[in-house]
Amino acid sequence: MHLATIHTGAGHTRAAVRGSDADDWTLLAESDAGVLIAHPDWRDRVDRALADPGSERVSAAGSELAAPIPRPAKIVCCGLNYHDHIVETGRDVPEYPTLFAKFADTLTGPTADLVIAGSEKVDWEAELVVVVGAPIRHASRAQAEAAILGYTVANDVSCRDWQARTLQWFQGKAWDRTTPLGPVVVTADAISPTDGLSIQCEIDGDTVQHSNTRELVFDAADLVAYVSQFTELGPGDLILTGTPGGVGLGATPPRWLRDGQVLTTTIAGIGTLTNTLRISQLAPAHEPEDPA
Amino acid sequence: MHLATIHTGAGHTRAAVRGSDADDWTLLAESDAGVLIAHPDWRDRVDRALADPGSERVSAAGSELAAPIPRPAKIVCCGLNYHDHIVETGRDVPEYPTLFAKFADTLTGPTADLVIAGSEKVDWEAELVVVVGAPIRHASRAQAEAAILGYTVANDVSCRDWQARTLQWFQGKAWDRTTPLGPVVVTADAISPTDGLSIQCEIDGDTVQHSNTRELVFDAADLVAYVSQFTELGPGDLILTGTPGGVGLGATPPRWLRDGQVLTTTIAGIGTLTNTLRISQLAPAHEPEDPA
Repeated sequence: MHLATIHTGAGHTRAAVRGSDADDWTLLAESDAGVLIAHPDWRDRVDRALADPGSERVSAAGSELAAPIPRPAKIVCCGLNYHDHIVETGRDVPEYPTLFAKFADTLTGPTADLVIAGSEKVDWEAELVVVVGAPIRHASRAQAEAAILGYTVANDVSCRDWQARTLQWFQGKAWDRTTPLGPVVVTADAISPTDGLSIQCEIDGDTVQHSNTRELVFDAADLVAYVSQFTELGPGDLILTGTPGGVGLGATPPRWLRDGQVLTTTIAGIGTLTNTLRISQLAPAHEPEDPA
Repeated sequence: MHLATIHTGAGHTRAAVRGSDADDWTLLAESDAGVLIAHPDWRDRVDRALADPGSERVSAAGSELAAPIPRPAKIVCCGLNYHDHIVETGRDVPEYPTLFAKFADTLTGPTADLVIAGSEKVDWEAELVVVVGAPIRHASRAQAEAAILGYTVANDVSCRDWQARTLQWFQGKAWDRTTPLGPVVVTADAISPTDGLSIQCEIDGDTVQHSNTRELVFDAADLVAYVSQFTELGPGDLILTGTPGGVGLGATPPRWLRDGQVLTTTIAGIGTLTNTLRISQLAPAHEPEDPA
């Protein structure tokens, strides 16, 4: 089953559902898929909407999609989690996942422009995203697996100049509306990243990342279980699982995104994000005072 | 003016206000001070409540306080921001603030027990907290200063064993209900951290940190302006400004908090947090699979 959030005009959105092979979306009452899955009975709501001939339906081809989960309470990101990307950065395979957080404002839609003013080193990171479906704390791997609602795609677009300013990556990763998410959430019964899904990133049609989710060091259930040791996760919370090799930072010489380029991010069985970069390399309006 | 969130029984809370020298709190209609200050007319609401003889009032002495802003949308934390703490960690004075994020679930009340299961290296970090009062983006220092609503106190209690597992500090800093916040928010017209406020941390009455907020490398306005370059801040968002020297990690040998100890965190002119540690040094229920 696919879940989505669809723009319905005048700034409004609606949660929507379709079978993997259906040509149209069935709209639900909820304003987005995140609000929908916060209801413990969301599967019943979906079943009723699909069965009801009176439900509103829109064609998949004509629908403009938003980020499926636009307001998660928690977004946890994992770095250094693909065997090939770890090799690229010259590091050892880690014993523990490297984690950082982002805010919901960082997210944007699967076809939105990415507007960035003030970075000269904008890089790409195609990522599999885990969508949590149930409250979970101090979970075993099996409990974590059962709490996974599904999967979607993100590109953790990163401002490497800001990221490299200090030891902590956050300020290069938390730019408003620079992490496209979507296009849909595919439920966990329909897809298995651990068995292997092709993940790919292109710039203007040129493939820059191409790997497989079976290369993940810590898989979806590992990450949900690990994070749940220190914080409760709940419906709609997201875990970005890290990016494979092929980022611009790892190229010789390093390669950065340019204004007007189109970034395409695909995971087989989930879908594709298509985002145009709108980069103005202005210095930010404010630099911190000289810390003399 | 002081703002607070007061426990009113049966799991309920109310926003409250008092003059700096008043003996009682005046309760407002809103459920907490974060909800209150989200209203652009919050100062009018406060003025009306203070002037109304029919307002509910409770004695300050008899009130149990909650975290004043229990559900901020964004909590940004700054590390390595006191000259004395930077010296302690052996680093140079930084050109840029070191930033990371935490989730609202990390917060707890100014007298709450801190329950931690699964860390053997629990450390303390007394911190000044900036409370943002207005939407702000791409701000100058002057604009940032104008957008600061006030200040409160936090202790960024840190699980150093988890923090040191990887390059990113987040997993040692994001444990649910381990960052006490409060006891009150003091409005910016009543206090000036840049001019200097004494900041102090004690363990069972033994002073371990004692510094002054004028030691901050990046002050409140610097941090608000800097963060606003990449993400919009809004009413109730918090910036934890970093901790002075004297943390357990910096001691020789390192010193960790023990079960039953009382952590006292004070900033002159704002107030004191008093929290008892409840530490069980159990291994977590789950360790990640061997990443072979």
